[in-house]
Amino acid sequence: MNTTVYTVTGMTCAHCTAVVTEELAQLPGVEDVAVELVVGGSSPVRVISASPLGLKDVREAVQEAGYELTEEAA
Amino acid sequence: MNTTVYTVTGMTCAHCTAVVTEELAQLPGVEDVAVELVVGGSSPVRVISASPLGLKDVREAVQEAGYELTEEAA
Repeated sequence: MNTTVYTVTGMTCAHCTAVVTEELAQLPGVEDVAVELVVGGSSPVRVISASPLGLKDVREAVQEAGYELTEEAA
Repeated sequence: MNTTVYTVTGMTCAHCTAVVTEELAQLPGVEDVAVELVVGGSSPVRVISASPLGLKDVREAVQEAGYELTEEAA
């Protein structure tokens, strides 16, 4: 099991976090996604997956939702 | 044809405006809804309807979406 915390900017409300969560949950092997919304700032997004995710795939999922992945925090 | 501008607070993004628009569009006789999003402030919401709407119905629709109708502007 892998846990990675990413940072996403641009989310402002619960709908935004729902869309990001939905996109990330569709990546193969993802078992849980938790967003801690920081309005007007960088929101930590914790993703638990069966195997390590490709950063490119995660970035694309976040962009698909309409937001930006700014860094992989841990 | 009736045009009324209401004021709604609490919306922060395009998803919020979509939910409010969707709820108001479901009121009987509503033909068009236009939201001008003011993040962190009062957003004007223009509703065009075949006949005048009840303020109570409009308020309930906005609350159903998760936001607050603060005043009927015009």
